Amino acid sequence: MNSIHPSAIIASDVILGHDITIAEGVVIDHHAIIHDHVSIAANTYIGCQCILGEYLADYYPDYDNKAHPLSIGPHALIRSGTIIYGDTTIGSHFQTGHRTTIREKTVIGDHVRLGTMADIQGHCSIGRYVSIHSGVFVAPNSIIEDYVWLFPHVVLTNDPTPPSDSEKGVTIRRFASVAARSMILPGLTIGEHALIGAGSVVTHDVPPGKAAVGSPARIKGDVETIINPDSGEPAYPWPRHFSRGMPWKDEGYDMWLTRNEL
Amino acid sequence: MNSIHPSAIIASDVILGHDITIAEGVVIDHHAIIHDHVSIAANTYIGCQCILGEYLADYYPDYDNKAHPLSIGPHALIRSGTIIYGDTTIGSHFQTGHRTTIREKTVIGDHVRLGTMADIQGHCSIGRYVSIHSGVFVAPNSIIEDYVWLFPHVVLTNDPTPPSDSEKGVTIRRFASVAARSMILPGLTIGEHALIGAGSVVTHDVPPGKAAVGSPARIKGDVETIINPDSGEPAYPWPRHFSRGMPWKDEGYDMWLTRNEL
Amino acid sequence: MNSIHPSAIIASDVILGHDITIAEGVVIDHHAIIHDHVSIAANTYIGCQCILGEYLADYYPDYDNKAHPLSIGPHALIRSGTIIYGDTTIGSHFQTGHRTTIREKTVIGDHVRLGTMADIQGHCSIGRYVSIHSGVFVAPNSIIEDYVWLFPHVVLTNDPTPPSDSEKGVTIRRFASVAARSMILPGLTIGEHALIGAGSVVTHDVPPGKAAVGSPARIKGDVETIINPDSGEPAYPWPRHFSRGMPWKDEGYDMWLTRNEL
Repeated sequence: MNSIHPSAIIASDVILGHDITIAEGVVIDHHAIIHDHVSIAANTYIGCQCILGEYLADYYPDYDNKAHPLSIGPHALIRSGTIIYGDTTIGSHFQTGHRTTIREKTVIGDHVRLGTMADIQGHCSIGRYVSIHSGVFVAPNSIIEDYVWLFPHVVLTNDPTPPSDSEKGVTIRRFASVAARSMILPGLTIGEHALIGAGSVVTHDVPPGKAAVGSPARIKGDVETIINPDSGEPAYPWPRHFSRGMPWKDEGYDMWLTRNEL
Repeated sequence: MNSIHPSAIIASDVILGHDITIAEGVVIDHHAIIHDHVSIAANTYIGCQCILGEYLADYYPDYDNKAHPLSIGPHALIRSGTIIYGDTTIGSHFQTGHRTTIREKTVIGDHVRLGTMADIQGHCSIGRYVSIHSGVFVAPNSIIEDYVWLFPHVVLTNDPTPPSDSEKGVTIRRFASVAARSMILPGLTIGEHALIGAGSVVTHDVPPGKAAVGSPARIKGDVETIINPDSGEPAYPWPRHFSRGMPWKDEGYDMWLTRNEL
Repeated sequence: MNSIHPSAIIASDVILGHDITIAEGVVIDHHAIIHDHVSIAANTYIGCQCILGEYLADYYPDYDNKAHPLSIGPHALIRSGTIIYGDTTIGSHFQTGHRTTIREKTVIGDHVRLGTMADIQGHCSIGRYVSIHSGVFVAPNSIIEDYVWLFPHVVLTNDPTPPSDSEKGVTIRRFASVAARSMILPGLTIGEHALIGAGSVVTHDVPPGKAAVGSPARIKGDVETIINPDSGEPAYPWPRHFSRGMPWKDEGYDMWLTRNEL
């Protein structure tokens, strides 16, 4: 049985499975496919050609869709062509670009944004207010904490001796920023407020508050020494200068930090 | 009201919005979605599952599709799965691979080709006879002049201190060629007829006619000194040796150059 | 005329062309498009929104689909959004991720896996038991032998002086492993059992059994000297320690090797 709120707007060509819950104000656009055991909270938009509740591997041997629930929070904006597997939980105010992929056993917090063709390979934890840009690859067992930025085409790996059965995911700590097309080798930790420069290959842990760049990446110093070319002032820690969409946007980062005792 | 030429062939399962103009000889294949305010010129092919006139951000708050026109020129070949936003203008003889993405406020000249999964993030200018291969990422505010080549998985960036509100796009001058999986850092200019070797991370401007390679890229000399291994002759400037699809294909580059006083 | 086995399950919204053969036990899921001249062997699953028998370039001038057959072997699992061209032959037990692209004149052996958004540009040969991960780009004229691994975002190139009409594909010999986001320059050969470390740009041939890493890649020694951090034992040759899905999984690699006289 499906539970669909009468205020939901679902295009007539949408495919619906069973055990689906659709809350008030949800919109599901053309040619989307909602498989079984999917729950969509209020005021969420599902774009054209999205596939939600995508099958896990245990579907294919007998074409029996086991109970792998997908839960999507309220106020999400899931753009066209996105695929999200079952056994996944996503918080409120989630946004994707186009053709994003999120595999099973992923837990995503509130206010997360994933870019076009970002590829989350499952068994991952993604915190709150995380921004992951276009074409990013996140290997299984990655841990991405709150307020992290992964810029376009970043790759997080997990196998130190490929191929093997080892899966040593990467950990990206709070407020860290990994610039475009950088790669983090398996099992490493990028520290809180650290910055990885564009095009880097990171082969060692990066301590909190340090900037590293290069292939292999070398630590260049404290992030506070990096100047924003527009303002002439320190660019980091970035929350002092960037608040769009962030919880400190009204009071400023320092005040917010004091109040929240992070 | 839509204006659809009687000679157009539109599959019965295509979704059509309103204020759409479809000229003579247009073909729109299965499961394509044409949103509002899209104009498709004569003899253009729209592949299966394409989405044209994709919504801008101002659609989602109230699900009211504001007037963001998309204009596609004649003789285009848009392969399956491509998504093109509104507020975009595309010239004649445009070609895409599969699942190409073009966001809003992009202006594209005649005879441009975009590869499979190329990702143009909008607010960009792309000239004439430009070839952008598979998996290329073009950040907002990029300027790509005529006769430029971006080979597979090239990344053009735009934020020198990510995250920030700064958007310093890259400029690629006429006839420049950026080989596979190279990245150009924010705000840089690649000069006319310059060559960026494969896998480079470009951290400084590259002067006209120079070859640069490496991570970080170093200038190696003049492009004329690079030999084509097949012919044993200089490979650059490339238009002397490559004319497929180019306007000098009948008379040769030097004669064409003389006549066009570039 | 189409030949469809009565045991096949084809969603009612699937688009079928002509000259299609569908064997027993095949399942074709919602909104898939099967163009002309496609043959699907027994017990194969075709996911939602897949496009099989995609048009070659000779379709578009007159919208006449010439005979470019696609043959897919038995027991394949082709996940949603995958596009496969005509003039392609694929063996048994094939698997793809989502939105994989395989262009024309590709020959693929048995037990091959291609990841999400892998992009095989055609005119390629891929052996048996090959694993190609997410976002890999394989240029035309590449040769990938049996038991090869290409990890996420690997790029195989083919043009030494881009743009040109030269197409010097890469050759990856048996049992070689190319780690994440590495790139191989045109015309090179990666030797049998060689290992390319993550993030490398390979500019010279790599001899059999050697490990190379860096940008540009340097040879670091024999692969046997690399230790698996979990076991403390040599990680290579990898088939001694990894057998999931491989033909030696019951008897072990050394016994299997003896029996098969490779």
